[in-house]
Amino acid sequence: MKRVLSGTRPTGILHLGNYFGAIESWVKLQDQYECYFFVADWHALTTGYEDTTNLREYTKQVVIDLLASGLDPNKCTIFVQSHVPEHVELHLLFSMITPLSWLYRCPTYKDQMRELKEKNIATYGFLGYPCLQAADILIYKAELVPVGEDQLPHLELTREIARRFNYLYGQIFPEPQPILNTVKVLIGTDGRKMSKSYGNTIALSEDLESVRKKVMNMVTDPARIRKNDPGHPEVCTVFAYHKIFSEDTVDEIEINCREGKIGCVECKKKLFDNLSKFLEPIQSKRKKLENDIDYVLGVIEEGAKKARAIASQTLKEAKDRAGLL
Amino acid sequence: MKRVLSGTRPTGILHLGNYFGAIESWVKLQDQYECYFFVADWHALTTGYEDTTNLREYTKQVVIDLLASGLDPNKCTIFVQSHVPEHVELHLLFSMITPLSWLYRCPTYKDQMRELKEKNIATYGFLGYPCLQAADILIYKAELVPVGEDQLPHLELTREIARRFNYLYGQIFPEPQPILNTVKVLIGTDGRKMSKSYGNTIALSEDLESVRKKVMNMVTDPARIRKNDPGHPEVCTVFAYHKIFSEDTVDEIEINCREGKIGCVECKKKLFDNLSKFLEPIQSKRKKLENDIDYVLGVIEEGAKKARAIASQTLKEAKDRAGLL
Repeated sequence: MKRVLSGTRPTGILHLGNYFGAIESWVKLQDQYECYFFVADWHALTTGYEDTTNLREYTKQVVIDLLASGLDPNKCTIFVQSHVPEHVELHLLFSMITPLSWLYRCPTYKDQMRELKEKNIATYGFLGYPCLQAADILIYKAELVPVGEDQLPHLELTREIARRFNYLYGQIFPEPQPILNTVKVLIGTDGRKMSKSYGNTIALSEDLESVRKKVMNMVTDPARIRKNDPGHPEVCTVFAYHKIFSEDTVDEIEINCREGKIGCVECKKKLFDNLSKFLEPIQSKRKKLENDIDYVLGVIEEGAKKARAIASQTLKEAKDRAGLL
Repeated sequence: MKRVLSGTRPTGILHLGNYFGAIESWVKLQDQYECYFFVADWHALTTGYEDTTNLREYTKQVVIDLLASGLDPNKCTIFVQSHVPEHVELHLLFSMITPLSWLYRCPTYKDQMRELKEKNIATYGFLGYPCLQAADILIYKAELVPVGEDQLPHLELTREIARRFNYLYGQIFPEPQPILNTVKVLIGTDGRKMSKSYGNTIALSEDLESVRKKVMNMVTDPARIRKNDPGHPEVCTVFAYHKIFSEDTVDEIEINCREGKIGCVECKKKLFDNLSKFLEPIQSKRKKLENDIDYVLGVIEEGAKKARAIASQTLKEAKDRAGLL
């Protein structure tokens, strides 16, 4: 069975954008492959080292979110990156053979330097994070990595590092290939990209009353003043959500909207009903997990053990090949 | 008792230049401080990753050289860097808070990039090695570091990283101070700086017959053609060695040379005698160690245990402060 590796940063509790961007596909992958999913707390430091107050709590909350979303520790390995120090040692080994130019060349490097210019991220660790990602993947000799389009250059760099190691010290690493998610992109409640920094997210664990308010405040077609005016679903945030949460009725909603047969308030209520149906099982599972933190900590501990069993073998092999005792 | 940390790279078996540049002072320091001395095999990769064939063997041989030179595992802790993974984790943590500009600013960075331009060392790991050094030192909360003048900027960077960590996450690291060696600089057998790359070294373990030949081939005062010509000790390689190996008689040798009362052949024979007296006890101890490799491996293993006992405490504290679980 092919091995899959993917991770998510604990930048906060997970929201619907994270869910449809990655977690939904992880839940499917765990039935098809030998999967390793991790919370990338080291990576959170690359951009967030200046304030780590919530890092510990977010890390735990993300694990809870993953379990509540349907990841099953009997089907996949769930762990926290910093609990598996082998990632860090392989990263140092890779750093010795990775030309600086490869890192400066990464398109995400310049993008993020621009986007996060209010933060002081011109650090050594931030420059090197694709090298840490390579270690994250290759320490498990993972062959498949579910990624978004924007992460393809990083995966290419991982393959370059694998090739360089194999060339210098002997063939031990595979060249991992992407699984391109057929991701459902979910916009934020204000119609922009869903992002914590825009304050337009809906958290997986969000109180339903708060969800209801956010839905009722969504901006609809601004050209539609009266209920009977024909609507333009393609510019409506509510409709964008219906496409994901109301798959059975979305065609009917579209027709009714265009013909002015359904008012925006009614349309929002339908959306809220469906969103509730989606969130309720996740939230009820979440409540059980919150009341059984020992179970969650046990999953994390067991995950680290299983991950280290593989990672320590690879590290031993890699250090040995590179001439370290 | 203050804690001292210092390391040496396993770039080959140790020669007299290494001995007088560092090891001689380590042997003294072990009686005055709580000392940690290590073989820096990770650092050897920063410039030598392209050929690591001998790294393992050199690492062992350097430990043998250190023991033969008088380091006593009952007085100090001797270990191999890669056996203490805590260095590597602290390095990653430091990398997150170390501005790239601090690393580019290091005078040794540009020097080495120029000096080693035939090697491909424009790697991420080479740029970061002062950050790894900071971790080497601070993982033991060492307060004193014996260094040569050229290493002072690195130690300043270590203090800067300690201050930055303490500022961001709370005061845990001391700001280590240098012990400036009153180093005896020993030139190579050809009068240039002693360096493996010039082929002008005398190894601690060098066969005495080979040492004799090297001494007899040393260049003396070129202006002295006949034995009775007055000599100029200040330009003579043999005299430079007498200053270190013939402390009791060096004044007499100088006078006799200037007055043309001692011939160069006789002068070289005297030097060889004294060099032999210096090398013999080291070499005889070395032979015993070579015949008891299990003892040497035991010292290395025990050293790693003692080092990890301290290092794991510091790492736990540092990760905890930085918000990692």
